[in-house]
Amino acid sequence: MLSRITSASHVRGSIALGARSMRNFSSVSGKVYPSATAAVADIKDGSKICVGGFGVCGIPENLIDALSKQGAKDLTCVSNNAGLDDAGLGLLLQTGQVKRMISSYVGENKHFEKLYLTGELEVELTPQGTLAERLRAGGAGIPAFYTPTGYGTVIQEGGAPIRYKRGGGEVELESSARPTAQFDGRDYVLEEAITGDYSLVKAWKGDTSGNLIFRATAQNFNPDCLKAGKIGIAEVEHLVQPGELNPDEIHVPGIFVQRIIQGSNYSERIEKVTTAKPKADPNAEPEKPKPRDRIVKRAAKEFKDGMYVNLGIGVPTLASNYIPEGVSVTLQSENGLLGMGPYPEEGKQHHDLINAGKETVTYLPQSSTFSSSDSFGMIRGRHVDLTILGALEVAANGDLANWIIPGKMVKGMGGAMDLVSSGNRVVVTMEHCAKNGSSKILPSCSLPLTGKQVVDLIITELAVFEITKEKGLVLIEHAEGVSVDDIKEKTAAEFTVSPSLCVMQQ
Amino acid sequence: MLSRITSASHVRGSIALGARSMRNFSSVSGKVYPSATAAVADIKDGSKICVGGFGVCGIPENLIDALSKQGAKDLTCVSNNAGLDDAGLGLLLQTGQVKRMISSYVGENKHFEKLYLTGELEVELTPQGTLAERLRAGGAGIPAFYTPTGYGTVIQEGGAPIRYKRGGGEVELESSARPTAQFDGRDYVLEEAITGDYSLVKAWKGDTSGNLIFRATAQNFNPDCLKAGKIGIAEVEHLVQPGELNPDEIHVPGIFVQRIIQGSNYSERIEKVTTAKPKADPNAEPEKPKPRDRIVKRAAKEFKDGMYVNLGIGVPTLASNYIPEGVSVTLQSENGLLGMGPYPEEGKQHHDLINAGKETVTYLPQSSTFSSSDSFGMIRGRHVDLTILGALEVAANGDLANWIIPGKMVKGMGGAMDLVSSGNRVVVTMEHCAKNGSSKILPSCSLPLTGKQVVDLIITELAVFEITKEKGLVLIEHAEGVSVDDIKEKTAAEFTVSPSLCVMQQ
Repeated sequence: MLSRITSASHVRGSIALGARSMRNFSSVSGKVYPSATAAVADIKDGSKICVGGFGVCGIPENLIDALSKQGAKDLTCVSNNAGLDDAGLGLLLQTGQVKRMISSYVGENKHFEKLYLTGELEVELTPQGTLAERLRAGGAGIPAFYTPTGYGTVIQEGGAPIRYKRGGGEVELESSARPTAQFDGRDYVLEEAITGDYSLVKAWKGDTSGNLIFRATAQNFNPDCLKAGKIGIAEVEHLVQPGELNPDEIHVPGIFVQRIIQGSNYSERIEKVTTAKPKADPNAEPEKPKPRDRIVKRAAKEFKDGMYVNLGIGVPTLASNYIPEGVSVTLQSENGLLGMGPYPEEGKQHHDLINAGKETVTYLPQSSTFSSSDSFGMIRGRHVDLTILGALEVAANGDLANWIIPGKMVKGMGGAMDLVSSGNRVVVTMEHCAKNGSSKILPSCSLPLTGKQVVDLIITELAVFEITKEKGLVLIEHAEGVSVDDIKEKTAAEFTVSPSLCVMQQ
Repeated sequence: MLSRITSASHVRGSIALGARSMRNFSSVSGKVYPSATAAVADIKDGSKICVGGFGVCGIPENLIDALSKQGAKDLTCVSNNAGLDDAGLGLLLQTGQVKRMISSYVGENKHFEKLYLTGELEVELTPQGTLAERLRAGGAGIPAFYTPTGYGTVIQEGGAPIRYKRGGGEVELESSARPTAQFDGRDYVLEEAITGDYSLVKAWKGDTSGNLIFRATAQNFNPDCLKAGKIGIAEVEHLVQPGELNPDEIHVPGIFVQRIIQGSNYSERIEKVTTAKPKADPNAEPEKPKPRDRIVKRAAKEFKDGMYVNLGIGVPTLASNYIPEGVSVTLQSENGLLGMGPYPEEGKQHHDLINAGKETVTYLPQSSTFSSSDSFGMIRGRHVDLTILGALEVAANGDLANWIIPGKMVKGMGGAMDLVSSGNRVVVTMEHCAKNGSSKILPSCSLPLTGKQVVDLIITELAVFEITKEKGLVLIEHAEGVSVDDIKEKTAAEFTVSPSLCVMQQ
């Protein structure tokens, strides 16, 4: 059914096995546990557990299920997401076993929301890249590191609600401030490592010595979580003998795995099945253009040949449909995929290959997969050239607010803070005004920030603004038929008009 | 000739390529350069260059050769080693193109030594794990991080000679001190990231979009160096088309490679060809026991079933010949190999599979390979249970000196500082006294330290001492026929005698 990736293995070099190659098998097979139940049996109340997976992709289903039956309470769970109401860590929330979640995005779980807002559950929201790096640091003996992510936001300044009073309302426990330092004139936040008493992960294949191989974007947080746990517990779809995995293809060496089980009954659940639309009927009437089409087409002009780009969900993603002729860009998806292809044809979706919006996608020939810490290393290290994303508010100095509206449910910042703090080009696409007509371009943001002085360009249906440290907010393009006065009227922030002002590129 | 590792690929899952899968090939092929000469043509005088490889394993031979002909001067080279007199970076030293080396071990190069001691070359010695992590940080947008490595040594305190006065003798430039901090009561050193203007690496296979796959221990510093360079230049043994590499098997995604070339004429040079000895003639007279045999056999008693162990060259490595029956240990080699097998049979050695001593070794069924930063993450993160290594001096409080004798040539600390600073069990094997008869167990070390309060156990041919923070130096075993008074006479440090003192285990 599904097309097959060409194997590179037919040209694999051949390297000698040791003379003692076939002995010592039993040595490491002490790691194999008979069941998920046995593997989690000794997890005590109050344990801290690092759990792999992104959404429901690559989650250790069997282990979570066994833990929900085992009943350990007051758990602290470190996991990018909180599962769904009836899947993943959602199961442990249903049974009331979780005291605290350390996550980056928890928006898919209604039960979670209720528990949090009524003081039944503590939540430490952590930017996705920072979460991955803190776990990676925990596994690598690095107690703390500096990152640009979150500088000038509540993450660095402290005060994010961790626990509400029982019954709701008042905040009872807030996050504390992080130390900061400057390196080469830029501001950074000191983040500490995360370690766990246990880690629960899922791999595609593993051998009895604990070596693991992941498949596609089901890798995600699994390696980072695994390495951060004192006792690493892995479930695999295929448990094989040592010698069956190529040493160079192993994603995580067996040293990080203390217990391994053969998993079963994998749900293959997909949060958002997205498939390619059938080709439009050429005789059908063209769809009526929408105001956002103008934004989408203008955003596509930002693509330059050879760029690596991360696109937010919605309008930014639509821009990839208008990549100019002769220009090739490579899309990065922060859950661990470079060279993201389009939605699959109907029936060809695979639960292990999703994008950061949890939608099913496909490989391109140049695709590669990797862990979450590697993905955000790529982002934070300025290897991704361009980020395009939406906003709730942008300030004249480039401050960006797009992750939280106080009083409404906090879903988490996901990877947004990491993406905008890397120092690479950040383009905001948004409607010029909010639904109530108020300007979204402001003298200063009223909402909590996602990043401080991070936006380089704003594209709305009315105008394009450039923001630089030297010149501030500058109007560089106006939409066809829209005057500078029109724009001034609808823009709360003051701006200057570029001497080379022109009509918006389309 | 060489036996073939079983391929895991026959059970690879099949995941859809995108609908647009065969287009956009040209997009990324702009990275392919016609030659090494073309790929390094624009490297300017004064550039900082990160160069992959460990010893001469996995070095970018073609690119280094081209750079030596191109002639750029005053280069700063970041590379674990400095090559040999006539290979690797040794070529750039011969041509006088290098101003400064940032390395962990430079002991294999006589010309290097002369240049350094006569003030022609600056050298920043950096512990191997710190070097790998600084490069990894540079590539991942982490400006600085804390590590336990080097605390209380010249690395943290400063004062290591970087440049001697022209003609030699006086030190003209010293390394500066690093900030420190405590986390959970342990002391750590703040280390800053390393980035380069260029990186030169070698991979086994690569596609025209820049995706790379390494083979065996030729991976080593290549991924970390590559990611740290602003312009990443890769040479590969096999240049293939996108789609020929499995996305999950790619070690470094193409985003880190700006230029790629098909390499040629690989030397397949091996620094130390080591092969298994033929089985001893059972009728031959047994070899006369040496005093060190007692040390070796006692050290082997430290192996417990299931342990992961890093063994220093010499006596520690010999201990692996005496692993007790029923006990299985997995050997870690810090150049990027877990599950190190014995020396290969004559003729079966492979230049891409070496240990940290640059000797040829083999795979075991449970073997896995990885990068230098991953290797030292494993070490620093306390996943390696036990380190056994030699010493010049040990102090009663566990201070260790084993990397430098002032006035003699500085070869570098390699990975020793990282290995002893992780907090895992550190066992020293050494002769009780130096060649001049003086005690090597001292009230305090006179030589520069490798680590502060890091040794847990000392094994000599006379005695075994335990060192703990609570009780200090305690004699726990004495060799057959050696009295406590004999030991006292030959031990400069004061020690207490364990109430359960016994004869040395053998």
